[in-house]
Amino acid sequence: MTARVLVVDDSPRNLKLLEARLSAEYFDVLTATNGADALEICAEGECDIVLLDVMMPGIDGLEVCRRLKACALTSHIPVVMLTALNQPADRLRGLNAGADDFLTKPVDQAVLLARVRSLSKLRLSLDDLRSRALQLAKLGIGDPFAEALADDGYGGRIMLVEDCPSTAAIIKDALRRHHIVTAGRDWGRAFDPCEARRFDLFIVSLDLACYDGLRYCARLRSQAETLQTPVVAIARAGDRQKILRGLDIGVNDFVLRPPDDSELATRTRTLIKRKRYADCLRGKVGAMLEMAACDPLTGLRNRRYLEAHLASLLEQSLADPLCAMILDLDGFKLVNDLHGHAAGDEILRCFALRVAEVLRAKGLLCRLGGDEFAAVMPETNLSAGLEIAENIRSADSSDSFAVTGDVPVSVTVSAGLAESAGDSCAGPLHRADVALYEAKRGGRNRISAHYAANGRLTG
Amino acid sequence: MTARVLVVDDSPRNLKLLEARLSAEYFDVLTATNGADALEICAEGECDIVLLDVMMPGIDGLEVCRRLKACALTSHIPVVMLTALNQPADRLRGLNAGADDFLTKPVDQAVLLARVRSLSKLRLSLDDLRSRALQLAKLGIGDPFAEALADDGYGGRIMLVEDCPSTAAIIKDALRRHHIVTAGRDWGRAFDPCEARRFDLFIVSLDLACYDGLRYCARLRSQAETLQTPVVAIARAGDRQKILRGLDIGVNDFVLRPPDDSELATRTRTLIKRKRYADCLRGKVGAMLEMAACDPLTGLRNRRYLEAHLASLLEQSLADPLCAMILDLDGFKLVNDLHGHAAGDEILRCFALRVAEVLRAKGLLCRLGGDEFAAVMPETNLSAGLEIAENIRSADSSDSFAVTGDVPVSVTVSAGLAESAGDSCAGPLHRADVALYEAKRGGRNRISAHYAANGRLTG
Repeated sequence: MTARVLVVDDSPRNLKLLEARLSAEYFDVLTATNGADALEICAEGECDIVLLDVMMPGIDGLEVCRRLKACALTSHIPVVMLTALNQPADRLRGLNAGADDFLTKPVDQAVLLARVRSLSKLRLSLDDLRSRALQLAKLGIGDPFAEALADDGYGGRIMLVEDCPSTAAIIKDALRRHHIVTAGRDWGRAFDPCEARRFDLFIVSLDLACYDGLRYCARLRSQAETLQTPVVAIARAGDRQKILRGLDIGVNDFVLRPPDDSELATRTRTLIKRKRYADCLRGKVGAMLEMAACDPLTGLRNRRYLEAHLASLLEQSLADPLCAMILDLDGFKLVNDLHGHAAGDEILRCFALRVAEVLRAKGLLCRLGGDEFAAVMPETNLSAGLEIAENIRSADSSDSFAVTGDVPVSVTVSAGLAESAGDSCAGPLHRADVALYEAKRGGRNRISAHYAANGRLTG
Repeated sequence: MTARVLVVDDSPRNLKLLEARLSAEYFDVLTATNGADALEICAEGECDIVLLDVMMPGIDGLEVCRRLKACALTSHIPVVMLTALNQPADRLRGLNAGADDFLTKPVDQAVLLARVRSLSKLRLSLDDLRSRALQLAKLGIGDPFAEALADDGYGGRIMLVEDCPSTAAIIKDALRRHHIVTAGRDWGRAFDPCEARRFDLFIVSLDLACYDGLRYCARLRSQAETLQTPVVAIARAGDRQKILRGLDIGVNDFVLRPPDDSELATRTRTLIKRKRYADCLRGKVGAMLEMAACDPLTGLRNRRYLEAHLASLLEQSLADPLCAMILDLDGFKLVNDLHGHAAGDEILRCFALRVAEVLRAKGLLCRLGGDEFAAVMPETNLSAGLEIAENIRSADSSDSFAVTGDVPVSVTVSAGLAESAGDSCAGPLHRADVALYEAKRGGRNRISAHYAANGRLTG
């Protein structure tokens, strides 16, 4: 896997060295000698990963990193800081700025390349998701990025797979103030499909006595439920091969033994933020897809959904009767005219709730538009349907609707019903519509049924 | 990157060997000794890649592959066939069954592993997309999988990067019957962001005289526009290292020199089908997201979209006036009652088109629900807005609507207008609503305006 890597360093010599090394590995390399240029390249969407020197004149690396992470356009871009600073406090400052990793010069080239390769895989899952989220932002119906950015990375559910009591104690102490840490020996929970999705992060020892930690990580990566859940491995400093192998398999980050508590806490937070960022975008896109089948005013299913589902509902109820009902508020136009559209909308929302309450799970309720609703009730014959309709009608004619800042408004409802008769998809709804027309002609506030067999109508 | 690999072979010895080899590389291995079991495991969604023996008693490998590729649940799973058959005709039969690759035993283990690793990356981009598409299928509003499966892989736009005239001629001959092949020396077109997206496949020589073919492939993989576009490399049989490197970088498939025309044609088709499968799912998800902001009946923007955008439209037009208009068909209830809802819907669709025609790009037109529409026109003052409204009204009162199988129906329209006055978001629309009420009270088929400054209304 390759990617566009931006190398930022004020030393031309360092730039050249890194550029040559990355280019030999077929990465597409861009360079910048100062923070301002780096920020511009990132904002233009021209790079996938940033390798960032800390000490630069002007905007230094820490500040560049902070700004990248605070901006919706760039917060997803992984940042690896490279520096001659080698104190734990420096390291922590870098990680706190939001960096995904902080490597001290002279950098182990193999580790750096493995890390860059691993970070470049993030694009495969994130690029598509981001373009869908950008589409939502452009449509203006929700800003998924703002919400994703707001997450603080705290309150994560973490599973710890470590059999060394002292290391486990350090890790639990470091994390339990801000997260829920599941320790113990029940490591198989990660592979229970129901449980697996609940975790935001796994911390896995590569030195378990009875199990190959790398294989544990590989299993997390290969099962669908944890494919994208971050994994941090705990390794011994000397286990370079294991570390490289882990990055290749899909481990996201490493902490060396004995783990430094602040560093672990910061890395954990960065990874949880990254996971929730993707979760948030995914959730928003999913919610919007649901909305395509929903009426915006009442939250009921819309005409599009009803039409798509009617055929399969009819098919499922070939043996049983299916009852279709169309409901229409009487003289609703007048309500809008007298009380304004805001009040009218409130009544529609309230009416939708009432009908849903009467129907419960017995049928599919949709708003067709305006003050017209349709319900399709499987395994319901016409007389059972008429009973339901009568419950709705009588509730409506006895209870008025409370409208904010106005007097209660009374609105009656008319309904037309019809039963399926092995006919076409539109059949029952069309006959219900004919029956509704009869109900309206008959004086409103009433229910009418259409009998397919003999075409008789009853008021 | 790891994955769940299903190995299917009727020889327990072969199964053991492959299982051990893959497991040592940290793949999660499942095994099956016959076609029926293999199909079941795939249908259950338990594996990401299938390694398939051709000759098995019962359902043979070719048939298993065909069935996997014909089923919406499993068509996306990559299949590599492994066989002792070594004739080009056997190979072609396997590829024609839909296999992603066909390797002859004894298999070069490094090539097999590189191939499996490369195929396992497909999940990262496809898993998310598939779950969104599954959500759509579940909602019943479109079946993206059926459409994706129907594609035949023909008619692709292919860019050929090859400087050897005889190889280029073979490739063009092999493909131009079913595809559009762009050859020539203008290889830079692939890196022009506008052009890049147009191609469905790239075929790249790894033996170019003036450029490193692997670097060309890497650049295709690193730029966003071609990140997911399939790449086939043309290599010499002896260039094993280049082939392995290519797979690592993200090349999808290889053809050895001199290319066999039938094999190239089949591999090309498989890759184009795979690309279009993802494109199709992506397109459907995108279209459905658009629909969340659209009214299902007229295709206009809906209330949800209007509310989300009104604030920013007002903000943009702080200096310029902005005109809001609410349109409402007169006595439309009667149309539904007299002519049925189908006719009513047709009139609403037709009216929406008329209004859109008059407005052109001058404003944002939405259906609020029922027979009520709203238009927000930036950079338009009240008198310009009144002119537009009058054009709509007069067109409507003079031209009747043609309704299928019925007499033409005349419907008039009333409208209320108001100008922005530096007030709150809901302000102009609310005032337009007040004006609409006046128009209705004044006798319908007329336009009324609300003047914020002095509250005066004109009919």
